[in-house]
Formats: sequence, C-alpha cells, structure tokens
Amino acid sequence: MPPLPPRAYLARRVVTCDAARATPSDSLGVIDSGAVLVEGGSIAWVGRQEEIPRGAALIDLGDAVLTPGLVDAHTHACWVGSRHAEYAVRMAGGDYEAIATAGGGIVATQASVAEATEDQLVLALTARLRRMASLGVTTIEVKSGYGLLPEHERKQLRAIHRASGERGVPHVVPTFLALHALPTSARADREAYVSRVVTELVPEIAAQKLARFCDAYVDANAFRIDEARAVGEAARAHGLGLRLHVGQFADVGGAELCAELGARSADHLEHVTDAALARLSASGTFAVLLPTACFTLAQSPPPIARMRAANVRMVVASDANPGTAPTESLPLALAMAVRLYGLTPEETILGATRLAAASLDEPLRGVLAAGCSADLACWDLPHETAIVQPWGISRTRLVVRDGDVLYDASCSERPYGRA
Amino acid sequence: MPPLPPRAYLARRVVTCDAARATPSDSLGVIDSGAVLVEGGSIAWVGRQEEIPRGAALIDLGDAVLTPGLVDAHTHACWVGSRHAEYAVRMAGGDYEAIATAGGGIVATQASVAEATEDQLVLALTARLRRMASLGVTTIEVKSGYGLLPEHERKQLRAIHRASGERGVPHVVPTFLALHALPTSARADREAYVSRVVTELVPEIAAQKLARFCDAYVDANAFRIDEARAVGEAARAHGLGLRLHVGQFADVGGAELCAELGARSADHLEHVTDAALARLSASGTFAVLLPTACFTLAQSPPPIARMRAANVRMVVASDANPGTAPTESLPLALAMAVRLYGLTPEETILGATRLAAASLDEPLRGVLAAGCSADLACWDLPHETAIVQPWGISRTRLVVRDGDVLYDASCSERPYGRA
Repeated sequence: MPPLPPRAYLARRVVTCDAARATPSDSLGVIDSGAVLVEGGSIAWVGRQEEIPRGAALIDLGDAVLTPGLVDAHTHACWVGSRHAEYAVRMAGGDYEAIATAGGGIVATQASVAEATEDQLVLALTARLRRMASLGVTTIEVKSGYGLLPEHERKQLRAIHRASGERGVPHVVPTFLALHALPTSARADREAYVSRVVTELVPEIAAQKLARFCDAYVDANAFRIDEARAVGEAARAHGLGLRLHVGQFADVGGAELCAELGARSADHLEHVTDAALARLSASGTFAVLLPTACFTLAQSPPPIARMRAANVRMVVASDANPGTAPTESLPLALAMAVRLYGLTPEETILGATRLAAASLDEPLRGVLAAGCSADLACWDLPHETAIVQPWGISRTRLVVRDGDVLYDASCSERPYGRA
Repeated sequence: MPPLPPRAYLARRVVTCDAARATPSDSLGVIDSGAVLVEGGSIAWVGRQEEIPRGAALIDLGDAVLTPGLVDAHTHACWVGSRHAEYAVRMAGGDYEAIATAGGGIVATQASVAEATEDQLVLALTARLRRMASLGVTTIEVKSGYGLLPEHERKQLRAIHRASGERGVPHVVPTFLALHALPTSARADREAYVSRVVTELVPEIAAQKLARFCDAYVDANAFRIDEARAVGEAARAHGLGLRLHVGQFADVGGAELCAELGARSADHLEHVTDAALARLSASGTFAVLLPTACFTLAQSPPPIARMRAANVRMVVASDANPGTAPTESLPLALAMAVRLYGLTPEETILGATRLAAASLDEPLRGVLAAGCSADLACWDLPHETAIVQPWGISRTRLVVRDGDVLYDASCSERPYGRA
C-alpha cells in the first residue's frame, strides 16, 4: 500500500508526554486545541491548531484526547492454552507455590507451548497483539520463557519475530526470558541447564537477533542471584539489554543485581529495600510495575512512596500472561496502578508512554514530538485522566503506528446496525 | 431481515445455567460436547451433540465455551459527559461526600444530561449498549436518574426507550430511578420534590410504560426511609417492580425496607445486618452486588459469607455510571467479584445469568433451555472460569440475542490485515 498523504490530526487536547514541553504544573506537556502533523511513518510537527503548516489534510478528532500510542513494557503475550483451573484455585486461596507444586504455573503453559506448532503460536500471538492494539498499544515488549527447553524457546522467539511482521500489530520488542522456570527434565541437573542457557542459548539468540533484551526471574522460588548474574553477564557480552523479574515474592537481592549489571529495568519490585532503590536510581534502571499481577495475587503494592523519594522512574505494564495476569489490557493495568498503587494519573500515563519507551531503548516512541515515530492513540474520551478509569473495554477511536492505522473504531461499527 | 433458518450451535462446553440440570457438583448445569438449537428468536432444544434433532444447520464453535448471554441487572448507562476530574480527586483520597459537596457527583452528570438533547442521549446510549453487547451482555437494566427534574427524567426515559429499539443492542429493562439526588433547585423544598415524584411522576411513567421498575437511593447522605417508602408504595400501586440502592455507605434500614415492600432487589449492601439479610431471604429479594464501585471507592466488600448463610440470592452487576463505576464491562465486574468479594466463579456466573434475569422478572433469559429466548454468548475461551479473569477487553467470539447476532468477532477483524 502506498503511504498515506501528509495529514494533521486535530484534537481539543493533545497530550504530548514530551519532556521538552513539560512544566511543573503540567508533567504531560498538554497542548489545548493541538495538532500532530504526520508524514510517512513519522511526526513532522506538533503544535497549536492555528499554526499548522500549510498543505496538510486535516483530520479533526473533535473533543477527543490524543496521546502517544501506549507502550506495554512487560508482557508474556506469546502463550497458548488456558490456566482457568489454576485461576480458580488461586482465587480460593491456593498460593503460587502450591499451584506450582501441583503442576500448575509456568510449567503448565510450557506443556501447551511445547505441543503447539510455530504457526499456531504466530496465529495466537497475532490475534492477541491486534486486540491489544485496539486498546491503544502501539509498542509492546514480548518475552519468550514458555519454551524452557532450547528448541521450544527458539520456536517461541521465531513466532514472536514472525507475528511482529504481521500487519495491524504494535511494534514488538522481543525479550529472551532465559531463566523463567526449571523444566521438569532439568531438575536433576540444574547447573547444566543454566550453563547451557549461558554458553549456548544467549549467544545464539543474540547472533540471530531474535531478541533485544534478556530476562531472568529472580526470586526465592525461582532462580538465584548467581544464576541470573551469569545470564546477565553473557547477555551484556553479546549486546543484549537486560530486564529482570525481581522482588515479586521475596527480596533476594535482585534489585541490587539490576543496578550492578546496569539493567534497563527491574520488574515487579513488591519487595525492595531503600538501599536497593537508591542504587536503581543511580544506575538509571527503570522500575516496571505490574499491578494486574498484584490484583490477581491479592498482594500488597510495591513501595511507591519510597520509589518516588529515591527518584526511581516508574513504568506501568500489563504483565499479560496466562497465570498471574490473565489480561490483555494495558489500560486496565493503568486503572489498577492508580487505584491500587496510588500513582497519579499523570505518573501512570508517563509510565505507559515516554518512560516505558525509554525503558525499552525506544526513545522515538511514547512521545508526540517532531521526528518521533507516528504512534498515536485517539481516545473516545475528553481528558487523559479518563483513560485510567476501569472501562474494561477499548475506549480508543483510532490507533496509528508508524503512520499506519492499526485500529479504527469507525470501521468496527457492528455490522448489524440499521439497514 | 428474514429470520435465520433453524441452526444448532455446537460447543465443547455448553454452560446452561439451567436449575433443572444443576447437580450438587455442577451448579451451572454444564453439557460436555453440547448443542443449542435455535429457531427464530427462541431456543428449541438443548442437549448433547449426538442427539441434535435432524434438519438443523450446524455451527460448530469448536473448543469455545457457550453460555447464556450475560444479564447486567444494575446500570446507569444512559449518561453523557465525563467526570474525570472527580475521579482524580477520589483516587487522591477525596471522599464521595466531599466530591458531592464540591459540586461533583450525580449533580454534575445531571447538568450534562440537562444540556443534551434526547437525540444525543439516544446516540450515546446506543453506542454504549453496542459496546456492552460485544462483551457478551444480551440483557441490561438501564436506570434513569440523571434527569432529576421531571422534564429531564422523561427525556432520559424516552431516550432509553428509543435506544432499546435500535439494532445491535441488548434487551433493555428500563428503571425509573425516582430518587437519586436532590436537584439544586429543589433544596429549598425537599418535601415538595419528593411529593411530586410520588404523586405525579411515578403514575405518569407507569402509565406511559417508560419503566418496568422503580428505584430510590437510600443512604445517610441520600434519601430517607420514609421518602423511599412513599415512592415504593406508589410504584407498587401503579404496577412497577421495585429495586432499591441500600447500604452503600451506611445502614439506615434500607434492606428492611426492601423486604417490607417486596422489592425484587436490594442493591449495594456493603452495610447490612444479619436480621435484614434474613428478611431479604424471606421476601425473595435478590442482593445485587456492585464490585466495580467498591473497587473505585476503595471500600470493604459486602458480607458475602453472611449472605450465603442467610440464603440470599446474589447477583453481580456492573453499576456502569460516570462517577463511582466508570466502566462498561460486566465481565470486569465479575472478575472483581471473584477477586475482591471472594465469590466462586460459579456463583459469579449464575449471578450474571439466571439469577440476574430472575431479579429483572425475565425468567426466559439468562438460561440455555428449550423455550427460552435465544440469548447466547460464545467465548474465545475454553472454560467458563476463564470468563471471570480480568481480561479488560471483549473475549467473546459471537453474541446472539433473540436469535439475532449482536456481535461477531469474525466480522470485526481489523480491516488492516494482509491484502
């Protein structure tokens, strides 16, 4: 398809999320009666409507609010199967470890992913990514980690790569979740499993460019600090960025490891010390908060006030996964961040736009500014605060990524309206 | 359009919610490898696939789960405007009364509704009802109550009536919310306002058949027991059923009033005594639980264990409204009922199907059984427990009401797929 001609989107409220426009009283850099000029896949200009450069076609979105396309910085979206039985057990009070011991948890999805063909993974992920796009998401991190065994991790990463090339999906940032759970077959020799990941899989996946980041799940019942350090060092040596699951159930020093290794993000962080937060702040590591998992697990929130005090930059993500966060909605996670974590609407929106993009080394996304990717979400809502209400359904009117339309509610009107 | 020919929907799991099929170990009356035969607007037969009557066209839904279309028994869906500023105040700790005192709350939406034309209300409500249908809802109660003044209450009820005749929307059960908030202009003479509602509005609206139920908001900062009793008695005298908002913030005896008047439902019930629950049970009054409002208000749950002990039948509804439950999703309310209230998935599903329909005097809805309305929701999920997970997006594949298709996800595929 030929590119669309230059066009300016007009909205009563353009929420740029641009640090250059932010003021002490307006952290989101809002332009009233604003416009965004898109040429090809990029934003050519952002400003007030009366100053739009000549020659652009005008698309007036009226009273709607226009934001950068949302950025979901932590997902396990490449799954098949369903863990509804485990969900019922958890709701009835069964804990994470009891579920894992009973054969549920990550290993259950591993079995589904092992059974699935690469094509089936591509289809399931593509459909899910399109649904997520309809919610306003234009950039998404997708982790592997349900393969566990090398051949299935490769299959999962190839499926992520293929789905990311389909039309109608967000821009995908793939992460190799190198250590997620110990596969049953590796229980007898844990050292050999970790060693193979470090010496074979990380180099191979980096060489094939199947991932941009590497991840490991560091917790009392997951992987140890020394194991994650070995993976992290290998990842860095092979040019992969690092994001780590740390402090979800217990603080075993994962946040300190993030700082030590210069990880881009420390994810979860329900349990973390002030000293570790100071180190994360110094290392420029983002905190990725995952409130939907907290909701599902009925956990206490992470220490938001202490994170603010330590100047740790906060990102909010969906954690979309079939077990602890069986969701497809970043906006719902934002609603939970506001209600359950006490983030302000402004913190929440920055944590799902500019800061989320920065945590993914995507500085041209998550911001409405000249020279950035033309990633836009237009909401059927008059103000950005309304985005973080618990709608439970898409409230976008239009979603654009790299200048292409991912979703247009006016094209999705029920086909059963009046004849 | 001519009616569709007789057709049987086949699914691996047909969740009938039929009391006649329920067993102690299967309260939902599930049929494995089941089928539902639809003729015209009704269900002609329900049973196992190998016993389908001859002659029907077969529609195989594969691994999907098929349930009755959901029934949302408490909504204020006919609103315009946005209360995002108030939402931010509430999230930052401002309470309901502080917001109301500051000019927010119900009176804020009253101003928006007063400004809107009837046509604008019809358009906004129809669009919202269609989105709700995409979430699996085929029957919905919609209250007035944002008019407050007679001319605007009439306008709102006419708009609800007109929207209910649009294609693609759920079956609508209209409720006249007679006492919701005191309009500013009536503050000087509260008695006269209530009197006019009782002697003029209730009879008129009943005569015009603009509502099937009447409602009043009974709480410490809303209307008194004697005021609600006057409205309830007038409603009964004019043939309207009764549902009352009671015990949301304080127990002022609203549940007892429900029992006394034989109300079909007592809604909210965060605060209620055991004695009142026993009376509700004896009067056959349903408890309508509204967990999304509880989430938004950060309230403690209603006494579920005591309701179970008292054999009070529990319904779960969205409470969709622009202030305390700015949502459009009954499935999200179900997820919150399971997580925040501790309802089982089975209780939750019955409370959004058969019991919800019964509370609305709609015994032919909310159940998959011969002779019932052909209201079906087919889910892109393999088991009914998965429905109550916090997806935050529609997970239906197909939604049918009275035999007509309201929503078909395969017709909503993004128009931007591969050429």
